Amino acid sequence: MKPIILDFDRSSGSPLYIQLYDYLRKEITAGNITDGEKLPSLRALAKNLDVSITTIEMAYNQLLVEGYVKSKPQSGYYASDINTDSESKPGFSPAPLDFNNYPFTKAKYKYDTRSFDFVKWKKCLAKVLNEHADLLLFESNPQGEKVLRHEISRYLYSSRGVKCTPDQVVIAAGTQQLTNHLARIMRKMNIRHVSTEEPGYMPLQNIFRDMGFTLTKIPVYHDGIHIEKLPVNIPSAVYVSPSNQFPTGAVMPIGRRYRLLDWAKKNNSIILEDDYDSELRYFGKPVPSLQGLDTEGTVVYLGSFSSTLFPAIKISYMVLPNHMVDIFKKIKNDYDQTCSKEEQLALAMFMEKGYYTTNIKKLRNLYAQKLQTTLAAFGKYGDDFITPQNTSSGINIIISVKTEKSTELLCKLAETLSIRVMPMSAFIQEDAAELIFYYNQIPLEEIDAAIKELVLLWKKQ
Amino acid sequence: MKPIILDFDRSSGSPLYIQLYDYLRKEITAGNITDGEKLPSLRALAKNLDVSITTIEMAYNQLLVEGYVKSKPQSGYYASDINTDSESKPGFSPAPLDFNNYPFTKAKYKYDTRSFDFVKWKKCLAKVLNEHADLLLFESNPQGEKVLRHEISRYLYSSRGVKCTPDQVVIAAGTQQLTNHLARIMRKMNIRHVSTEEPGYMPLQNIFRDMGFTLTKIPVYHDGIHIEKLPVNIPSAVYVSPSNQFPTGAVMPIGRRYRLLDWAKKNNSIILEDDYDSELRYFGKPVPSLQGLDTEGTVVYLGSFSSTLFPAIKISYMVLPNHMVDIFKKIKNDYDQTCSKEEQLALAMFMEKGYYTTNIKKLRNLYAQKLQTTLAAFGKYGDDFITPQNTSSGINIIISVKTEKSTELLCKLAETLSIRVMPMSAFIQEDAAELIFYYNQIPLEEIDAAIKELVLLWKKQ
Repeated sequence: MKPIILDFDRSSGSPLYIQLYDYLRKEITAGNITDGEKLPSLRALAKNLDVSITTIEMAYNQLLVEGYVKSKPQSGYYASDINTDSESKPGFSPAPLDFNNYPFTKAKYKYDTRSFDFVKWKKCLAKVLNEHADLLLFESNPQGEKVLRHEISRYLYSSRGVKCTPDQVVIAAGTQQLTNHLARIMRKMNIRHVSTEEPGYMPLQNIFRDMGFTLTKIPVYHDGIHIEKLPVNIPSAVYVSPSNQFPTGAVMPIGRRYRLLDWAKKNNSIILEDDYDSELRYFGKPVPSLQGLDTEGTVVYLGSFSSTLFPAIKISYMVLPNHMVDIFKKIKNDYDQTCSKEEQLALAMFMEKGYYTTNIKKLRNLYAQKLQTTLAAFGKYGDDFITPQNTSSGINIIISVKTEKSTELLCKLAETLSIRVMPMSAFIQEDAAELIFYYNQIPLEEIDAAIKELVLLWKKQ
Repeated sequence: MKPIILDFDRSSGSPLYIQLYDYLRKEITAGNITDGEKLPSLRALAKNLDVSITTIEMAYNQLLVEGYVKSKPQSGYYASDINTDSESKPGFSPAPLDFNNYPFTKAKYKYDTRSFDFVKWKKCLAKVLNEHADLLLFESNPQGEKVLRHEISRYLYSSRGVKCTPDQVVIAAGTQQLTNHLARIMRKMNIRHVSTEEPGYMPLQNIFRDMGFTLTKIPVYHDGIHIEKLPVNIPSAVYVSPSNQFPTGAVMPIGRRYRLLDWAKKNNSIILEDDYDSELRYFGKPVPSLQGLDTEGTVVYLGSFSSTLFPAIKISYMVLPNHMVDIFKKIKNDYDQTCSKEEQLALAMFMEKGYYTTNIKKLRNLYAQKLQTTLAAFGKYGDDFITPQNTSSGINIIISVKTEKSTELLCKLAETLSIRVMPMSAFIQEDAAELIFYYNQIPLEEIDAAIKELVLLWKKQ
């Protein structure tokens, strides 16, 4: 082979062996040192290049480990067969970034910084990192941190009448992850069919569909899902939100609740009770859960913290009946926990200190005022033009608008004012003219002006 | 109906309307007020009970909303048909909890508090909460926070030779979540078959199996997966860890890398390159990635932060070729981001400030010392009894033990000393006598004594 001629750049800070390795790698890749060609001995090359034998050995070792050369015992190093006709990629160099001046994606819609107390949250996070950092040095429990499951079971009992032990609680990053677990458990129970509410929450349906389940949409009336249309004589599951149906806000009356439980018992079926936002009921107490009425282990209770803490927190939970806990325990170690352990521990502390219930009370109060202001503003500016419905719970109301404009156009116009309005048709198969108006994240003092502006824009030709 | 006799407990702190509501609910559920029975008028009951009409109205409204009573216009309130033969659950009251004295599940194995700098991490988290809390008031990007994707693309280019834009990076809570995304994208590419390494990382295989993929195990040799055994003439995917195979530590030489890329190109197939722990190589530089060699868009690059930050952090990422990015963008809004937004932002800042690369350097140095101490200790106490392999990368070595004891027993004995040892048979179909010994989380100064004790225990009759 040609002699190796290499001028080391001793001022570059790059170790000599790396410089030699880079040089040889390029020569081999370029075909200047060809397949099977013998490389100089360690001693000879060290002498030629005026460096130590160790430097040569380290470079050869790196080439060896990456396969650019082979070593033959008692003989030396030989260039490998690289076998490439690929060319290297065009020049590429991602720009450095300055966090302080980074153009963060701004919120698409108005938001209310008073809706969550980040000071207390930060206090809890800091305490976890100061006093319990050792807990972060091993992985999270696939079922969720026990201390948080404990707090959740206490909270659910006192606020929602849910009766469960921490052992029945499963924590995951969002309803979709819980649905993945559920789908796996339900398969083992030979359940392959899920009935869902129409209109209803969509993402869950995608997961079940992906996992090979059959889905049927059942209409929801003002008093909840149409029980008579549920499948009989086969085990199945029905997904309902009886205490605050999304998006209609319908509440299932007690008589229908017992009939639904009866349906599940008679058909060996289960009820997936999504209790999303049910704490946010502004007149009277929140409606107690279906789970609290269940004596047969037919109800899975689902809840989340995104509306009652801050939207970016991704902690959801479900309460399984004991026979489903047994199945979950057999499979849980096959699947990772997706929830941040740090945030789980911080949330457990946040709940233990009573900050969580204080925050809910504050939110309920704030949102009730927002709702009132919203309704008053629609009355004042909307008049006959806009009719609001569902006015006692959740974070949104439904409105009908008397206009020739399409619901899509109305939503787009709202977006130009940073107001979040969604077409009802996104949650229902049939055409629907209603819109869902989210008032929760608009700061209270901006609601009146925002709605005035919105109505003007919608009325404009 | 019988007259309503109720002694209000005015000292209990419970509002009067709630006390009345509770009383009436129990009477209706117990059947003492029966279906269709008319309740007293607001005025009459208010007078009888000596409370305000508003109190009665609030109680009736709560019963109405929950369906215990019905209202007939111009007539009044009537008890509903409850239709229940269920009995209420036995008494239940979860105990309160004291975070400071909570019996947290302790680490099963030894751990090293020096492996991560929580002070700097806390600083980044606090900065995010102090200066960017508004970003937490809306949901996380399903693809991952752009600022973190930017930092990841920069880091991967400089440390692993991966060439990508932030747009090609997808963030999720763990490899399992990434695999869920991958499975959905691959379906749209009509890929239904995945070849995996034997032995190899298992959880990913469960996900593909759950999603209906066919899996084939292909043996791994000292120089990587057996390319000749991969399927031809159909589009498929192969999952490899060419730079640090788990658990063997095998490195795929450059020639085989090009042959693998060639296989993918010729068969319209893709390569899933898991680059797990590849930064942790203790002699020479880390081996560059397969993605960096790819010019045809056949490589998906997968990485994670759990070994280089702290084990409980659940942030993983993948780099998709552009044609797969296009497919991902069509489906991404159907699926939630599972990663904590708070931690994503904190990590982006941690990387931007250079803490991440400092930490990796520190870790590499620390782990290299641990590895050396581990090998020395096995030499000193293990002698002919224990033979170590794979001694240049990762967080573990493979050991063979000359003993009649089963590998399961050896692992259990190690666990009694809080030392993490796993049987190789957990990752391979055939019987395997080797064990995987994790040295990374044992504090450096404890390694010698721990191994001495372990060898004594294993040798004991």
